[in-house]
Amino acid sequence: MTLLLSTMPERAKIWQQVFAAEGEPICIDSDAVADPEKVTVLACWQPPADLSIYPNLRAVLSVGAGVDQMPRLPQHLMLCRSLAPGIETQVRDWVVMACLMAHRNIPTYLEQASAGDWQAHPIVPNHARRVGILGMGRIGRLVAGELTRLGFPVSGWSRSGRPVDGVTMFSQDQLGGLLEQSDILVCLLPLTDETRGLLNQTTFDQLPKGAHLVHAGRGAQLVMGDLREALDTGRLASAILDVTTPEPLPKEHWAWSDPRVLITPHIAAQTDAVEGARHALEVLRAIRKDLPPPGMIDQAVGY
Amino acid sequence: MTLLLSTMPERAKIWQQVFAAEGEPICIDSDAVADPEKVTVLACWQPPADLSIYPNLRAVLSVGAGVDQMPRLPQHLMLCRSLAPGIETQVRDWVVMACLMAHRNIPTYLEQASAGDWQAHPIVPNHARRVGILGMGRIGRLVAGELTRLGFPVSGWSRSGRPVDGVTMFSQDQLGGLLEQSDILVCLLPLTDETRGLLNQTTFDQLPKGAHLVHAGRGAQLVMGDLREALDTGRLASAILDVTTPEPLPKEHWAWSDPRVLITPHIAAQTDAVEGARHALEVLRAIRKDLPPPGMIDQAVGY
Repeated sequence: MTLLLSTMPERAKIWQQVFAAEGEPICIDSDAVADPEKVTVLACWQPPADLSIYPNLRAVLSVGAGVDQMPRLPQHLMLCRSLAPGIETQVRDWVVMACLMAHRNIPTYLEQASAGDWQAHPIVPNHARRVGILGMGRIGRLVAGELTRLGFPVSGWSRSGRPVDGVTMFSQDQLGGLLEQSDILVCLLPLTDETRGLLNQTTFDQLPKGAHLVHAGRGAQLVMGDLREALDTGRLASAILDVTTPEPLPKEHWAWSDPRVLITPHIAAQTDAVEGARHALEVLRAIRKDLPPPGMIDQAVGY
Repeated sequence: MTLLLSTMPERAKIWQQVFAAEGEPICIDSDAVADPEKVTVLACWQPPADLSIYPNLRAVLSVGAGVDQMPRLPQHLMLCRSLAPGIETQVRDWVVMACLMAHRNIPTYLEQASAGDWQAHPIVPNHARRVGILGMGRIGRLVAGELTRLGFPVSGWSRSGRPVDGVTMFSQDQLGGLLEQSDILVCLLPLTDETRGLLNQTTFDQLPKGAHLVHAGRGAQLVMGDLREALDTGRLASAILDVTTPEPLPKEHWAWSDPRVLITPHIAAQTDAVEGARHALEVLRAIRKDLPPPGMIDQAVGY
């Protein structure tokens, strides 16, 4: 039972070191596989079209935090996403930063700075700035905890609406309830058929006038044209985006030069190679023991 | 025993409401004072040159968080600064935001955005980004607590070097020790003769190469020319400033258009009028009972 890894050379080298230190088998890239029957886990960004060359394959592990780049897998295969604590705190930090930037008028002050304009605007107290988080998984709960500690009232939206300490929760069919009280809307959703294009005009229209968007989900969830429209009507005051459609955003795209939009190039998180390798080790060991591997995706729902 | 308030009309109205609700005496502006002998507390930004017109005056209360705008007072008068919890959490939020922005390369990404350039840079783990805080008063300790929680190693510099939980402390004569291990240098110092011009070339030269400056102290602590020099040599990678010299910063000042410098127009905190009025009430009541009023300044050290 071995793990086959297909990735960039720098990352592969680190995985090899981590696996060697633990005496676990790893193969780097498919050409080096002497015996394809031994491969039980394939770690990659996207798998080859024909997986039948690995007759004993049990699981495909995404080397990224999401699995939306993965094709539909044959039913007998498990799909896992990389679980790296570093990713979660990185996204938490980016989102907390972006919320504070929206809250404290940074897009406006940056625009003023470009004109050399020294002009203060009133500070809204934290308790009067309501944050709504779409996606209350591990990262959503980390963000909610931090923002609650800073004094912001936080609501969350998840499929189940399951209670989260200190957070007003809304379930799948209660999206409108969350939107109408979100002065800052944070998107942390995975990309699925249901979330694709969710950040659109209908959604924006339900926000309080002058709301802010903080987007660290996936680019395909955001309808860029509807974003521009919402900024133009004043429905949205600003948007801070780590993901866009398309990616990379072309040089001449309007969003780059719009002072109401701040963009970072999909850097809210970067998988740390050591953490990724350690998680892969756990996946391999769980499968050996016939236990559900950590980070397993429910392929029916897509996350 | 009454309080005389000299301030903007909008603020005065709120103070009057707060004092009226508590049945406490307040006078708005000196023209309305029928009996100057009754004035025991003067709340203002700067007092009139001749305070002898109020023979029973006991204390002057700054309506701002600092007292560096105040002249030297006659020795029999106490000097207080406004204590408003809102100010402290506002500055905390601004500093945490600015540290995260420096940490996550926001100045670089904003510059790239202006060129439509989608290019990621590696994330430094929080535990490898050392933050040094100049000024470990109430706000410094709030900031340290938050940054420590987010996983940053935090050092602090104060006159006494008195221990603070979770923070490596340095005392007055150990500034160099703090500087050499500050990847992000945060200034929260009050303006005194000793801190004026402290953020200068000698100070910057002791920082690790490529450090970041986050400044929410007072403009007169920062030597703007030395800042530029430190950015040009690469000693500093970026500076996020809420205060400058002079203020307002003139339209044509180099710092506005330097992509390595982000400026907000002295808005890290704004005194909330209700909080300010409640604190003033406490000052008046303490003086009536001959107790030390909250927020009293040691005029020998200046804070």
